[in-house]
Amino acid sequence: MNEFPIERAKQLKPKPDPKTLVFGHNFTDYMFLMNYDAGQGWHDGRIVPYGPLQLDPSTMVFHYAQEVFEGMKAYRRPDGGVQLFRPMDNVRRLNDSCERLCIPALPEDVALDAIKALVKVEEDWVPSEPGTSLYIRPFIIATDASLGVHASHSYLFCVICCPVGAYYKEGINPVRIYVENEDVRAVRGGTGYTKCGGNYAASIRAGERAEGQGYAQVLWLDGVERKYIEEVGSMNVMFKVDGKVITPKLTGSVLPGITRRSCLELMRHWGMDVEERLITAQELFDAAKAGKLEEAWGTGTAAVVSPVGEMGWNDEHAVINGGAIGALTQKLYDTLTGIQWGTLEDPYGWTVRV
Amino acid sequence: MNEFPIERAKQLKPKPDPKTLVFGHNFTDYMFLMNYDAGQGWHDGRIVPYGPLQLDPSTMVFHYAQEVFEGMKAYRRPDGGVQLFRPMDNVRRLNDSCERLCIPALPEDVALDAIKALVKVEEDWVPSEPGTSLYIRPFIIATDASLGVHASHSYLFCVICCPVGAYYKEGINPVRIYVENEDVRAVRGGTGYTKCGGNYAASIRAGERAEGQGYAQVLWLDGVERKYIEEVGSMNVMFKVDGKVITPKLTGSVLPGITRRSCLELMRHWGMDVEERLITAQELFDAAKAGKLEEAWGTGTAAVVSPVGEMGWNDEHAVINGGAIGALTQKLYDTLTGIQWGTLEDPYGWTVRV
Repeated sequence: MNEFPIERAKQLKPKPDPKTLVFGHNFTDYMFLMNYDAGQGWHDGRIVPYGPLQLDPSTMVFHYAQEVFEGMKAYRRPDGGVQLFRPMDNVRRLNDSCERLCIPALPEDVALDAIKALVKVEEDWVPSEPGTSLYIRPFIIATDASLGVHASHSYLFCVICCPVGAYYKEGINPVRIYVENEDVRAVRGGTGYTKCGGNYAASIRAGERAEGQGYAQVLWLDGVERKYIEEVGSMNVMFKVDGKVITPKLTGSVLPGITRRSCLELMRHWGMDVEERLITAQELFDAAKAGKLEEAWGTGTAAVVSPVGEMGWNDEHAVINGGAIGALTQKLYDTLTGIQWGTLEDPYGWTVRV
Repeated sequence: MNEFPIERAKQLKPKPDPKTLVFGHNFTDYMFLMNYDAGQGWHDGRIVPYGPLQLDPSTMVFHYAQEVFEGMKAYRRPDGGVQLFRPMDNVRRLNDSCERLCIPALPEDVALDAIKALVKVEEDWVPSEPGTSLYIRPFIIATDASLGVHASHSYLFCVICCPVGAYYKEGINPVRIYVENEDVRAVRGGTGYTKCGGNYAASIRAGERAEGQGYAQVLWLDGVERKYIEEVGSMNVMFKVDGKVITPKLTGSVLPGITRRSCLELMRHWGMDVEERLITAQELFDAAKAGKLEEAWGTGTAAVVSPVGEMGWNDEHAVINGGAIGALTQKLYDTLTGIQWGTLEDPYGWTVRV
């Protein structure tokens, strides 16, 4: 286990009320920082009081968005312990993002130990109310203070945390989603399979537009043929059609979600027929018309599983399972959250105690 | 003309030697800042001493790359005056980028006056050696200090400047470029027509790879069919084939360059046959083989015009005009730089005195 120096904060913040937490607003007392400099590699991993970054206005991240991030959670177990869910998968995906964005890879063990060490220091910030957790945001930004488009020679790896409330405060309510015909989130050969800032920047307009029309999320189409569905908002998406589960395959423009992978592994473990393949929007609306679109749900770290109750596309509308959560969606949610919070056994070795 | 308060610097920096300037490294004494807050709009435009930005680590620009920028120059005229080149075109394009990235538009007159006011304050920084200029970088970053993918409610508009040396110190040497088959820079429906950070982040890997193989720039193919050429590095690209000039049309994934537009307008003014259309890489290599690819050049603010002497694509190689700059490329360069630096008359109303 790598050890990191800790600079103690002069004063700790009061903990916010876990019942009224808003996602991504209340940050903890400390953060993890580590620098990269060409010729020196990643160095000086350290835990310091949470506080502002001071950056020259010419810093590359402000201009060319050479930046990647991850999202994960620490969960409070019934026995009072704290655990992470498949954290090495996040570290590996962060490095996959780095490779595409021309950012030097993090040593995997250092990155994992950094996350564990920070969560350990912030253990009191992991809430224990049902459905709450400590959200962890590792990210890397290019810090060269000069203009000119090239790979930066210096970077900052930073990990921040914030306690987050239950995603479903009033029970799991299925959402309405909308097939986006105009804006494209990603294309094969681009950065779609990474968690880089540019993917999210490109997605904002369509998301705001959908929200303005009463939809919770956008269902993205592929950028080449504009007919295959890819993701829903910033989640992966799955469908149960005529007894079989289908989900878009990882073509390079789809994020390889860790919740996605976990759902697929669970269902295969349950002996279900699961297919990763190209899926057209037309196929889904046809299945809905034929009464065969039984369930639909998004998967992601924030919601775990988010049932879809209705899909819109041009003038077509499809209501799924009468707008209610389906049995499989519910089973996936119960199983995954059970393993994550430690109320169910973890036969897969997915959880890591801190 | 909008007026802005100026906070004076305690000490001014020594000016760097204009003969050894490196692009994008030496910033001037002041910068322009203006804030946006929801409900309040853009407010508090001001000129302040150049210095670091202090931002919470959760600030949106670090995570979701909601950021756009522009690039332009101030030129020292032979009569000692300073002028800008089509600055309103940059302001309008910045707002086009804003629209796609869901950033509130800048009032055009305020943005233009901000740039003029800053250049006025920094007039002594505009170098006068041949080919030198003051590079101006306006940019906008999302400043909400919270996670969650949505349009930020607050932004910072910032303008910084740096004197830059002559792009061609030892005469104009044509460059070698390479057709990129794997990575894609942009796709229709995405953000390719904007100057947002994500486009540049996506382009870095291929650029570094090309450089490692002895090429100066990547020639990008379209993201859909992977056969139409789009841009070269971060420049637009033009070709003279059998007496006719062709350039990729603006399909949504190509940046509408201001130097591109100026070249097209000049050539049409000269009575030349100029076509904006889809161009396959195959067509160019076929033309080269038939001895009809007469000239090729990139266009952009930094280089103005950058002649291409050789193109590589898989195992094919095409040498253009014996690797030397062509007559038309040279004429465009001479005319544009003449107008920009004020050594030629500006019959088009492109220049704006500061």
